[in-house]
Amino acid sequence: MKAEIIAVGTELLLGQIVDTNSAYIAQQLTTVGLDLHFKSNVGDNLERIKSTLEMALRRSDFLITTGGIGPTLDDLTREAVAEVLNKPLVFQPHLFEQISAFFKSLGRAVSDNNRKQAYIPDGAMPIENPVGTAPGFIAEKDGKAIISIPGVPHEMRYFMDHSVLPYLRRKLGIRR
Amino acid sequence: MKAEIIAVGTELLLGQIVDTNSAYIAQQLTTVGLDLHFKSNVGDNLERIKSTLEMALRRSDFLITTGGIGPTLDDLTREAVAEVLNKPLVFQPHLFEQISAFFKSLGRAVSDNNRKQAYIPDGAMPIENPVGTAPGFIAEKDGKAIISIPGVPHEMRYFMDHSVLPYLRRKLGIRR
Repeated sequence: MKAEIIAVGTELLLGQIVDTNSAYIAQQLTTVGLDLHFKSNVGDNLERIKSTLEMALRRSDFLITTGGIGPTLDDLTREAVAEVLNKPLVFQPHLFEQISAFFKSLGRAVSDNNRKQAYIPDGAMPIENPVGTAPGFIAEKDGKAIISIPGVPHEMRYFMDHSVLPYLRRKLGIRR
Repeated sequence: MKAEIIAVGTELLLGQIVDTNSAYIAQQLTTVGLDLHFKSNVGDNLERIKSTLEMALRRSDFLITTGGIGPTLDDLTREAVAEVLNKPLVFQPHLFEQISAFFKSLGRAVSDNNRKQAYIPDGAMPIENPVGTAPGFIAEKDGKAIISIPGVPHEMRYFMDHSVLPYLRRKLGIRR
């Protein structure tokens, strides 16, 4: 089975940040025996994220996206995934409760922008985020899956270790 | 005008090396006003390098490839560029002389493998490499260009500063 990494973010594309996430994800994917043939960086642009996802879906089985699921207007990964899969984004009250609780634990109020983070593509499995605000999700279609996780490095690592790798091991029938 | 970076090498893809080259190249491309919309990593596989180049040629004007022009059998960038442009690879005696001189300066004999590095796509402009063995090249087609430079970071930086940026400034009509 083939996997592909898509790092979303104009700051990565312009070299303002070196993409260390992709290296970590790549190393982890090899531990479950997935073949990795391509990695891509794409900026915060809906059409370009969509075209990158569409191309990746044609040639790979598991797509891991990192970044672009924050609260700001230029965080477009969830919209792109929903459009590529032809699914609406659906509000998940329990995700919003967790986001609110995270802010409360910091002594801050949750903003309207963060409400956007509680939307995931219809039918996708939410992945809760106990170490930050952005929940991730796994959207399956036709035996393939798009797995969207945060771009903040310590959150990305938490998601890989606690959710993505266990999910992939289950899908690939790997016991440990 | 749009530029696109393609980093070639399985070691990058698998996360054994973090791709710092792409960040440096991206920063430099913004100094000449090029728009960068995508970056890709592809492994040492001829068909996949070719498909990545073909896709990039459809959506961008300048392609910068880094890596895959060394002396070993899995260095396939020059073959991929030649096939995508439908040009034969042509032996350049003066490039081979420079490669030989570089080895001589190190007190070593040039190997048959290094002979391969003196081949570039027919019609391409060679870029000499005074800081290593792999010459680069610029292959133009239909107003677009594929610029292939080494993946060794200090050689990549030398090529960017001394050849690629001056070439791009000329093409873009930037005086300085």
